[in-house]
Amino acid sequence: MTDAPDGVPVVVALDVGGTGMKCALVRPDGAVVHAERHPTGAERGPAAVVDTILEVAEGLAGKARADGLTPIACGIGVPGLVDEAAGVAVWSSNIGFRDVPLRELAATRLGLPTALGHDVRVGGLAESRLGAGRGVGHVLFVAVGTGIAAAHVVGGSAAAGAHGAAGELGHIQVRPDGPRCGCGRPGCLEAIASASAVGRRYTELAGTPLTAAEVADRAAAGDELAGQVWREAVEALADGLATAQALYDVETMVIGGGLARAGARLFDPLRAALRERMTFHREPRLVAAALGDEAGCLGAALLALDRLE
Amino acid sequence: MTDAPDGVPVVVALDVGGTGMKCALVRPDGAVVHAERHPTGAERGPAAVVDTILEVAEGLAGKARADGLTPIACGIGVPGLVDEAAGVAVWSSNIGFRDVPLRELAATRLGLPTALGHDVRVGGLAESRLGAGRGVGHVLFVAVGTGIAAAHVVGGSAAAGAHGAAGELGHIQVRPDGPRCGCGRPGCLEAIASASAVGRRYTELAGTPLTAAEVADRAAAGDELAGQVWREAVEALADGLATAQALYDVETMVIGGGLARAGARLFDPLRAALRERMTFHREPRLVAAALGDEAGCLGAALLALDRLE
Repeated sequence: MTDAPDGVPVVVALDVGGTGMKCALVRPDGAVVHAERHPTGAERGPAAVVDTILEVAEGLAGKARADGLTPIACGIGVPGLVDEAAGVAVWSSNIGFRDVPLRELAATRLGLPTALGHDVRVGGLAESRLGAGRGVGHVLFVAVGTGIAAAHVVGGSAAAGAHGAAGELGHIQVRPDGPRCGCGRPGCLEAIASASAVGRRYTELAGTPLTAAEVADRAAAGDELAGQVWREAVEALADGLATAQALYDVETMVIGGGLARAGARLFDPLRAALRERMTFHREPRLVAAALGDEAGCLGAALLALDRLE
Repeated sequence: MTDAPDGVPVVVALDVGGTGMKCALVRPDGAVVHAERHPTGAERGPAAVVDTILEVAEGLAGKARADGLTPIACGIGVPGLVDEAAGVAVWSSNIGFRDVPLRELAATRLGLPTALGHDVRVGGLAESRLGAGRGVGHVLFVAVGTGIAAAHVVGGSAAAGAHGAAGELGHIQVRPDGPRCGCGRPGCLEAIASASAVGRRYTELAGTPLTAAEVADRAAAGDELAGQVWREAVEALADGLATAQALYDVETMVIGGGLARAGARLFDPLRAALRERMTFHREPRLVAAALGDEAGCLGAALLALDRLE
């Protein structure tokens, strides 16, 4: 006899972003048996977003039961500052969360043990346990998209820090005389090397709006201006990763997010630039994230399963 | 009946530096019942240093027994790259260690369970458990002396990283156009804000050799050049601490080493400069180390006691 009632056990998993929520039913072995997406609707305010999260989670649990599955837990990943120990979404710039006790709200609504995690940390958890960092003891997962953030995962557990704010790699200063970051400081890594910064910089210089992926393509095709913007971003990213390696000393860095889709156009020059910056330090292995969009849901499910133990 | 034979139990503790070894007999409650110092004699080469370490440790164990105490373990802290799990001194620039299995050597010679740790990490362990970081879950210990290095201590345990090289705060780049560091990179924090860098910079500009403490004194007395050098160091150190906070997110930063002896002349402007750099991050509490020179021996003893459990 086991604790789980009849039916294949699944975790209700939600990865809540600024614009959309990725949702899934995840088996304990990491298999996704059902997936759906919903708009976050952040423009309606944080209370409405919380209502949507709870409704969607309840709907997923109901769907699981209707399909003969047994929901055993719920895992939710959200952006911003997250106090994982207390289960509170402390602060989020794009959704407006301010001290929302989301774990308790979901646990009560669903009647299931619930875990609340930080979006990038749950992504890092999934990549380190099921993805590109599998079998590695010390992993840094770096998400380079609209912003830049990292998750330091040691022994399969992501460090949250004292206030749920560890891993803010996007907000280390790499260019003291660089452009001002959204956070207010000049020269943050995110202001130079995020996918949005790359697109913005090219647009500023060329007058033509391009995405980071298009800048990478043009740079590869020999466009000089695109090449310069891409090189600046790669050099800044290498500076950021060198700093992270000096402080964390990991074996593998898993790079995910929009910028990583540039593939060899990113990884070849980034590896070379990082190698140049290593003096007495061991060079980490640089690899692309393997789980794509699903990492957040998988990681939220892993966090929920960890809490069951 | 307990595991310990008759007599008050003590740990044989050694803190091996580039020039001197601090040695002590430490009770499990952290009380130092005997202390002595020996020259490291690094100029004789690493094999001779290892011999000295083993002789001194054996002598301390003998002294303990002669005094009616019972040596129960041995703890050794060394600089450089240290693989704590394997008990190997992997690499050290100032002593010349290359893959020395020091834990095994000492355990065999003394017949005592032995732990090998990194000098700054054991210092951090002691400060976080017995010193200025007592009662705090997330501590960053930063030693600012000849060099700069840090130990990230969470829940009373110092992170070593994948290769024993975590916490190298001195080797993050804070001034891309700054002076070249001993490690080979330009603008490392250590090349600008270490006690030796402060003395060197003033000497370069003024032609008069001064120590960092003297620079701080002169700056406080209104000497303009000293004020400039001191400000540059404080600003660079604040940049380094801001980066560390973005990545680690600690509650308290404990600053030790020679520079911390400047007291309010360091801490007042450093706190202000760090506060300016915090945007959405929580500001850590900045405090001076409390254990002084004894931190290394105390931490080596704590590490040895941890291994007994």
